[in-house]
Amino acid sequence: MKLKVIDVNLSTGGPAIAIISEADAKKLGLRASDRIRITRLRTGKVAIAVADISSEHIRPGEIGLFEEMLKILDIKEGIHVEVIPSERPRSIQYISAKLEGNPLSRKQIYEIVSDIVENHLSEVEMTYFVAACYSNGLSMEETANLTNAIVETGTRLEINKRMILDKHCVGGVPNNRTTLIVVPILASLGYTMPKTSSRSITSPAGTADTMEVMAPVSLTLEKIKEVLEKTNACMVWGGGNMNLAAADDKLIRIRHPLSIDPEGMLLASIMAKKKAVGATHCLIDIPYGFMAKFPTKQSASSLAKKFVKLGRMLGMKVKVVMTDGSQPVGNGIGPALEAYDVLSVLKGGGPNDLREKAIYMASEMLAMVGGKKAREKVIDALDSGKAYSKFREIAIAQGGKKHIKLPKARNFFDVISPKDGAVFQINNKAISRIARIAGAPQDKAAGIYLRVHCNDRIRKGSVLFTIHAQSRAKLENAILVAKECESITVK
Amino acid sequence: MKLKVIDVNLSTGGPAIAIISEADAKKLGLRASDRIRITRLRTGKVAIAVADISSEHIRPGEIGLFEEMLKILDIKEGIHVEVIPSERPRSIQYISAKLEGNPLSRKQIYEIVSDIVENHLSEVEMTYFVAACYSNGLSMEETANLTNAIVETGTRLEINKRMILDKHCVGGVPNNRTTLIVVPILASLGYTMPKTSSRSITSPAGTADTMEVMAPVSLTLEKIKEVLEKTNACMVWGGGNMNLAAADDKLIRIRHPLSIDPEGMLLASIMAKKKAVGATHCLIDIPYGFMAKFPTKQSASSLAKKFVKLGRMLGMKVKVVMTDGSQPVGNGIGPALEAYDVLSVLKGGGPNDLREKAIYMASEMLAMVGGKKAREKVIDALDSGKAYSKFREIAIAQGGKKHIKLPKARNFFDVISPKDGAVFQINNKAISRIARIAGAPQDKAAGIYLRVHCNDRIRKGSVLFTIHAQSRAKLENAILVAKECESITVK
Repeated sequence: MKLKVIDVNLSTGGPAIAIISEADAKKLGLRASDRIRITRLRTGKVAIAVADISSEHIRPGEIGLFEEMLKILDIKEGIHVEVIPSERPRSIQYISAKLEGNPLSRKQIYEIVSDIVENHLSEVEMTYFVAACYSNGLSMEETANLTNAIVETGTRLEINKRMILDKHCVGGVPNNRTTLIVVPILASLGYTMPKTSSRSITSPAGTADTMEVMAPVSLTLEKIKEVLEKTNACMVWGGGNMNLAAADDKLIRIRHPLSIDPEGMLLASIMAKKKAVGATHCLIDIPYGFMAKFPTKQSASSLAKKFVKLGRMLGMKVKVVMTDGSQPVGNGIGPALEAYDVLSVLKGGGPNDLREKAIYMASEMLAMVGGKKAREKVIDALDSGKAYSKFREIAIAQGGKKHIKLPKARNFFDVISPKDGAVFQINNKAISRIARIAGAPQDKAAGIYLRVHCNDRIRKGSVLFTIHAQSRAKLENAILVAKECESITVK
Repeated sequence: MKLKVIDVNLSTGGPAIAIISEADAKKLGLRASDRIRITRLRTGKVAIAVADISSEHIRPGEIGLFEEMLKILDIKEGIHVEVIPSERPRSIQYISAKLEGNPLSRKQIYEIVSDIVENHLSEVEMTYFVAACYSNGLSMEETANLTNAIVETGTRLEINKRMILDKHCVGGVPNNRTTLIVVPILASLGYTMPKTSSRSITSPAGTADTMEVMAPVSLTLEKIKEVLEKTNACMVWGGGNMNLAAADDKLIRIRHPLSIDPEGMLLASIMAKKKAVGATHCLIDIPYGFMAKFPTKQSASSLAKKFVKLGRMLGMKVKVVMTDGSQPVGNGIGPALEAYDVLSVLKGGGPNDLREKAIYMASEMLAMVGGKKAREKVIDALDSGKAYSKFREIAIAQGGKKHIKLPKARNFFDVISPKDGAVFQINNKAISRIARIAGAPQDKAAGIYLRVHCNDRIRKGSVLFTIHAQSRAKLENAILVAKECESITVK
């Protein structure tokens, strides 16, 4: 069937979709989500698309194409194409089988992932894949295959080094910004550490958001290689146009609406990003405790074992540390306030808990790669100022300014203790919520600055934390929430 | 945030979606699939939509609305709206819980179904619902609640009768067009039978497709009531604008891409359509046998029990018959060819297997409502011509012509037996496939006309079946497939 292209002036954000009229769909025997093969007549360029059947907006004889399809076919409105029904991708059968409880073979997983990356699957079909992995679980073998498939269908960072270090924290603890301290320490000791981090999803700041206050983090792969050659390390955003683990970004989009995190998919998602940068050694931090992702050490240790096993299957040395996540690590919560803590520690001062955790993480990492007297070397790197110099070197290589100037909020409010006593508990979730309502991470300077940690003895009226906000209105909202929920318990 | 409406000139086919720019999404702290509340400034009309974040086509300060949203807000391009973030529907949490294996309460099921009907859920979220019901199953209680929720959120056909009869076949057997014979028989005996049927999805014809060759089947609810008052019965298409079981139509769209049929959802889907027309007595036909949906009587009987139990929970009398589905019932396969068989039987002749099955079904139905000497009465209705008169009466009331003229194909081909012997097996799936390739159901006259049934003794060179096609090309394709696959086995 010959149809005239209409540019619908929209993007699908991925999936290859074409809209045809009900009448033409009937003639071709198509139902919604069936596939069509579109051929540009003059050039012979071909694309497969999911047929979306319109009752109104596309007339018989026309085919509505989204941006993605126009690009693939290199075509404009008004040009004619030939359209015939096409088979559905075989990966759909594999997804069905997984939903029915059958394990997926290596070949099947590769085909599903490659169809996801090439936009051959609709959102509905990808959702069935996520749901199937969630309901029926993924074996370690399936997880390893999924990880490799995600790596191999995405872009890889090729660095010619024998050892490449990486670290990851499963999150859930405010601040805890050790990455931005550990990376310059190890780089200053001569190790290669191409660190990619995420932005905030539901937290007041992700590592990439915090780094962005001090230097650009949205770099091309070329630029990242340049930074690495110059400085041994980088601290950049892992998303965007880099296309590392592209399939993973698409799956995360599908997981978001229900916050569905199939464990195997979570493991694959994390480890694929490590393997894509060529990591040979990886340190994983799983914080546990009150209002962390894992309530107890026991609950964290099953995941810990899987990380180690998956690492072995992927040919990567993985070490897991389970750390205290019962309260924030550091004082600042929000991009600029966290950056302030990071810079303080790098300059030899800073909140002691953040400094101690960074030293611990860096020492464990160094011990992994065979460094002797690890803790001593790490402390020396910090105290001698070598780590700070390295940090500035990396930040400048990424395009940062020579003099880092942190943004400051315009409005403040001190939340005070209602009584004498000791700090019994700090609720990570409540603290994060208040910081977000104050404007973080959108408003870089917004957030919370903690004045106390657990077990501190305090007097009635002394400050528990300060809320920082750009706008008066956001400050008022944050104060309201701070008054409603007991974020810090004094006993 | 004040935004200017852009008409994107497309429909989503349901879900309420609005497109906003990346910059505005960031300001509002939104991620893809978060909700926004849109208020039309002048009138105060309000709508909730899923936020779709565009990187290009919608500029900051604009909001792209699909047809559905423009209608709800009664708004046009260029008008300004106020946009704020909004909570997600609670039903999403219920879907998450079901995916985790928790049962759904009556209230939760009603909320999910009502959000589906009111277009509050995105396709991804509805997919998770289907997948959750598939993976974790639905209990009988959940199934009954789902059925009632589908009925109550849709339109109902109100008929003031003490007894309302209905029938259903789970399908999988070519032709088997008993409905179009049973309905006029029972209507001629004074019973009320408001029959809604489906169109073909993957078969060469659905009951609605076959009826449509003889009379219009796409009627409004008003028109259907008129037909029922005049004739006691109708034989119409259950989809389209009638809005009976509207939630079900949306769920079927989501089930299609993977052909996912969670058993509880299938039961609810069928029974909701019966309850929506007020059925008090319902006969269910489950054919079993080689290449039917159920290979053995045992495999069919678990479903049979559930139909009966569900009927009881819904206050409906349900009887299930398990019938021989090992070969097509009747000779014609394709809309016009099946209509030919139906009319032949109604006139007292026709293929004997179809006549016998129709008599059996009608007698069982009549016995259910307490009719004495059921079989005799049914045979009399057929042989006296009363059923045929009733059929014509109904067809004319639906808008059909006084003289039914069946369309005839232009091209034919006889497939012959390669040897002497007896017909050992007829492959339902292969026969259906050839009929579809010949053009059915799009080409009304296309399909297959069987010349033999199982156990018939035949000679080498005698005709097994005739392929009917409109176009030469489709005939050639059908011949090719007929030669490749052994649709009829002679031993």
